[in-house]
Amino acid sequence: MFWPALPGTGSIVAMTHHTVHAYAAPAPKAPLERTTVTRRELGEHDILIDIRFTGICHSDIHMARGEWGEGGHFPLVPGHEIAGVVAEVGPAVTRYAPGDRVGVGCFVDSCRTCENCLAGLEQYCTGELGMVGTYGDTGRDGRVTQGGYATGLVVDERYAVRIPDSLPLDAAAPLLCAGITLYSPLVHWKAGPGTKVAVVGLGGLGHIGVKIAHAMGAEVTVLSQTLRKKDDGLRLGADHFHATSDPATFEALAGTFDLVLNTVSAGLDLNAYFRLLRTDGTFVQLGVPDRPLPVAPFALIGGRRSFAGSKIGGIAETQEMLDFCGRHGITADVEVIPADRINEAYERVVAGDVRYRFVVDASTI
Amino acid sequence: MFWPALPGTGSIVAMTHHTVHAYAAPAPKAPLERTTVTRRELGEHDILIDIRFTGICHSDIHMARGEWGEGGHFPLVPGHEIAGVVAEVGPAVTRYAPGDRVGVGCFVDSCRTCENCLAGLEQYCTGELGMVGTYGDTGRDGRVTQGGYATGLVVDERYAVRIPDSLPLDAAAPLLCAGITLYSPLVHWKAGPGTKVAVVGLGGLGHIGVKIAHAMGAEVTVLSQTLRKKDDGLRLGADHFHATSDPATFEALAGTFDLVLNTVSAGLDLNAYFRLLRTDGTFVQLGVPDRPLPVAPFALIGGRRSFAGSKIGGIAETQEMLDFCGRHGITADVEVIPADRINEAYERVVAGDVRYRFVVDASTI
Repeated sequence: MFWPALPGTGSIVAMTHHTVHAYAAPAPKAPLERTTVTRRELGEHDILIDIRFTGICHSDIHMARGEWGEGGHFPLVPGHEIAGVVAEVGPAVTRYAPGDRVGVGCFVDSCRTCENCLAGLEQYCTGELGMVGTYGDTGRDGRVTQGGYATGLVVDERYAVRIPDSLPLDAAAPLLCAGITLYSPLVHWKAGPGTKVAVVGLGGLGHIGVKIAHAMGAEVTVLSQTLRKKDDGLRLGADHFHATSDPATFEALAGTFDLVLNTVSAGLDLNAYFRLLRTDGTFVQLGVPDRPLPVAPFALIGGRRSFAGSKIGGIAETQEMLDFCGRHGITADVEVIPADRINEAYERVVAGDVRYRFVVDASTI
Repeated sequence: MFWPALPGTGSIVAMTHHTVHAYAAPAPKAPLERTTVTRRELGEHDILIDIRFTGICHSDIHMARGEWGEGGHFPLVPGHEIAGVVAEVGPAVTRYAPGDRVGVGCFVDSCRTCENCLAGLEQYCTGELGMVGTYGDTGRDGRVTQGGYATGLVVDERYAVRIPDSLPLDAAAPLLCAGITLYSPLVHWKAGPGTKVAVVGLGGLGHIGVKIAHAMGAEVTVLSQTLRKKDDGLRLGADHFHATSDPATFEALAGTFDLVLNTVSAGLDLNAYFRLLRTDGTFVQLGVPDRPLPVAPFALIGGRRSFAGSKIGGIAETQEMLDFCGRHGITADVEVIPADRINEAYERVVAGDVRYRFVVDASTI
C-alpha cells in the first residue's frame, strides 16, 4: 500500500499496521458490537495511544444512532473523551514519549493554516479540511476517522494533550469533551470572583461546569428541572440550586446572572432564561437542540443581552483546562463500565440515569 | 392643584401651565388629529423646549396603532426624535439656557439610582420607575407622557442633549432615536478600522448606520432585499451592497462580518444571517419583530457567534453620538412635512416609501 506524503504530516514512515479492538455501531440505531479497526501507520508526528478509558458523551449516541441527519459512516466507533498512555511515537515527535499520560478530545486534525487554527481556535477551523472530528469524519488522508471505544488510537501529536499526574485517567477522560466545553465559555465570558454564573442542567456537562466555575471563584447557581439533585449540586460546588419547574424561580432570579451556560439540548423556553441575565449578560448554548428554538428578541434588546454559542475549545486551551483541573483536583464524577455494557449505558444516558458520566474501561474491549 | 415634592426633581416651582398644540391618535388605529396637551409646570431642573422638528419613527406608528399589544394610553401624542430650542428653564437648571439647541430622544426619565442609571445606561434602568418613555408611558408624577408631535415639551435637563451648531435641526432630529440606535452598538461591539460591518435594511435606521459606521472607519456592507437602493447606499458611505433576495449573497459573504446590525423588524431567516458572521462575530437585532423567530443554534455554536439585542443608548452616549455626528457632518436624509400630512406619511413609512426619514415641521402643528 502506498502512503502519499500529505501536507503537514510529512512523509509517512512505514511501521506496522495497528489493528485494535473496538466497539462499533454497525448501522444507525443498531446496538454496538465488538469488532476491530485498523489505525493508520505512524506518520512522523504521530503517536500511538494505548487507550485506557473513554467517556460516553451524549453526542456519541446521537452519532451512533444517525440522529444528526448526516448520512454517517458505518460501522462507526464512537468516543471522543479519550485518556490513555503513549505506546509508540513517530520519528519527528517532540512533545511526547512512550509512557506519557495523554488525552484526545473531539477532533484529531484541522487545516493548521487558517486564521482560527493559527489563533488556537482549531475547533472553528475555516480551512478546506475543517476540524476533523475524532470519529465519523474524513481525515486529510481521505480515511474515515474512528473514535475511542477502542484499545488504541493513532493521532498527530499536535492534537493530543497531556493529562496531569494528579488526575486519574478514568475520571479525567470526560474532561476532554465535557470539561473543555464548559471551561472555554467560562474563560471567554470572564467568569470569576464577583461574577454570577448559572449552569442549566446538572448532567455530564453541567456537573463539571459547576466544579470549574466554582474553582474559578464565580458564584454558581444550578438551574435544574427539579430539586432532586440539590444535595449533589451543592456538594459539587454550587452556591444555589433552583428548580426550573417552579415559575417562582424565574421571578426570583430575574436580572441576576452575568453568564448562563445551557447544557440542555432539549428545547427550553429560551426567552424565559434570557430574562435571568443582567444587562450585558450572555446566555451560551452548548448542547445542540434537534430543532430551531423560537426566540423573541425583546428580552435581548431590553438589556443588551446576548444569545451565544460555544463549541469545545482549541488544543492549547484544552491543555490549559487540564492543567487548571490538575491544580484544583477537578475530574468528572464517573461510573466506570466494561465495554459489554455500552448499549445499556446508552439507554441510561438517554434516560438521564447517570451521575454523571459513564466511562468505558478499554481493557474490557 | 398640589404638586408634591418628588424624589430627584426637588420641589416644584409654580409657573404657568404650558398648553401646547399637538397631533394625537385619539384611539388605536384612528388617524392622528390636531389637539392640545398640557405639559407639567417647570420643576427646578426642568426645561421647556420650543419644539422645531420631530422625526417619524416606525415605532410611533406601532404605538399609535396599538400594535405592540399594550393597552396603551389614548389619546396619544407620538414622537421621540425631538429637536428644538430651550424657551424657559427652571431655577436649578445648570446645563441649558434659553436659546440653546437641544434634543430629546426615546425617554424622559429613569430611576437615576440603579446600577444602570449610574453607569449611564438609563435605557436599561432596572429601578422601580424604569426608563420612562417619551410618550405613552407613566412618569414619576403618575401622569402619562406625551411626545414630540407638539409645539413644546417640558423635560428634566438631565434627559435633554445638546445639538451641535453644525447640524440643522430638521435633519438632526432623527439622530435622537435612529442615530443612537445605530451608534451605540457600533461603539459597543467595536466597529472601526479593520472591522467589517453589515447593515441589514437601508431605511430610516439603516441609512444612518451606514453613515456612522463609515465615519468610524469600518468597511461597510449594505444587505438590502434588492439592488434598488444600491446607488444611495454607496453614496451614503457603503463599500459594498448586496441583495438578500439573491441566495448567492449568502454564499459569497459566509464568514465575513465582525458585526451585523439588523434594522429590519420583519421576520428574517436569522440562521442564514448568522452564517455571514466570522468566528466571534455578533448579529445585533435592533428592530423588534412582532413574533418569535426560530433560531437554530448550530450556526452560533459553530463559530462562537452571538445573537444580541441593543436598545437606543444612554444620555451621555447620545450626547457623544451627537458630537460625533457634529464633527463628521452626519445627519439623516429627511423629507420635511407639515403636520397635516402625518397620516399620509405613516402610510408611506409602512410601504417603505421614504428616503429616509419623515420629519414634522412643528411650526405647522
